Amino acid sequence: MPKQVDHEQRRSEISRAVWQVVGESGLEGLTLRAVATAADCTTGMVTHYFRDKKALLAHARSVMHRRMATRIDALPPRDTPRETLYAVAEQALPLDDERYLEAVVWSHFQLATRTDPELLHEHTVSHASWVRRLTGLVRAACPQQPEPADLAWRVRTLVACLDGLALNAVTDPDAYPPDLQRHVLETQLDLLLERNHSL
Amino acid sequence: MPKQVDHEQRRSEISRAVWQVVGESGLEGLTLRAVATAADCTTGMVTHYFRDKKALLAHARSVMHRRMATRIDALPPRDTPRETLYAVAEQALPLDDERYLEAVVWSHFQLATRTDPELLHEHTVSHASWVRRLTGLVRAACPQQPEPADLAWRVRTLVACLDGLALNAVTDPDAYPPDLQRHVLETQLDLLLERNHSL
Repeated sequence: MPKQVDHEQRRSEISRAVWQVVGESGLEGLTLRAVATAADCTTGMVTHYFRDKKALLAHARSVMHRRMATRIDALPPRDTPRETLYAVAEQALPLDDERYLEAVVWSHFQLATRTDPELLHEHTVSHASWVRRLTGLVRAACPQQPEPADLAWRVRTLVACLDGLALNAVTDPDAYPPDLQRHVLETQLDLLLERNHSL
Repeated sequence: MPKQVDHEQRRSEISRAVWQVVGESGLEGLTLRAVATAADCTTGMVTHYFRDKKALLAHARSVMHRRMATRIDALPPRDTPRETLYAVAEQALPLDDERYLEAVVWSHFQLATRTDPELLHEHTVSHASWVRRLTGLVRAACPQQPEPADLAWRVRTLVACLDGLALNAVTDPDAYPPDLQRHVLETQLDLLLERNHSL
């Protein structure tokens, strides 16, 4: 089916172009025309695959989630629950080029939700799912039994810390290099997991 | 000097209009025309006070910083260094309408810095100053003497936690109501300050 193969390839080229445009000029620069230029094709070709700007946004977001999920699924087993927690948590940080671009898309999406109820709904659902995932991992990594009474709040500090780190690293990569991000995450896990009394 | 008074009043009306426009449609909606409509004046009148969109942005940002600094300066004395730290830190959270609008402006600015070196420079300077301010307050509030070896990293977890909370509350206010934000901040301070061993 050569025709089908062409379609898949074309779609994947346009998908890459969407990310390239967002990386270079943010969501506000994400137009059908800009994507067509980046993919070296006509605007009509882009609209054949993505009806409008909203469809481009939804696509960029779903690609971002798929990439992150794929990385997490592919993580090799770790020796301790804390190492597993760390390995999953750092997938949300812009520690390399791939994750930097994801964090750019993610941060622009966060703001775009303010004026788009559909995007907001998707955000709310995926954020809640992220909180649940981290809750399970923090619970497993907690050395204290029974678990601390404020475990759910500790998880929220971790979620906020990761989002704040990602936002700052997107904004000012020179001030937030990968080593600094990793060190802050390790410190947050130290604080979360190693404290000896529960409230 | 009635002429002068008119000028001041006009400028302050346009300033309010800038904030109104950002609150309603984000920085991408911040145009001279939108501000003129919101201030019920001509576009020419707006450009008399603010040359272009960049000047509007710079103005919104400086108003935001001035408002936050004014609130911090006006804080009544607290009984303990921890309460002082809490009172200053929560000025960065969107806990009421005024701070919500500030956080909207702040978050849009964060992303606008990516494509504007001048804004980025201002951001870098003010972020570093915020980190220094919180460092002094955390040091004063730390019950451990000598201070923990990882104090600087603990401060960074607090900075990231505040930024992440603010971003999430801007994005999805229903999922991040003021009580939740306060509780997360209290938990982060518990973790930061009450841990009994230093690394």
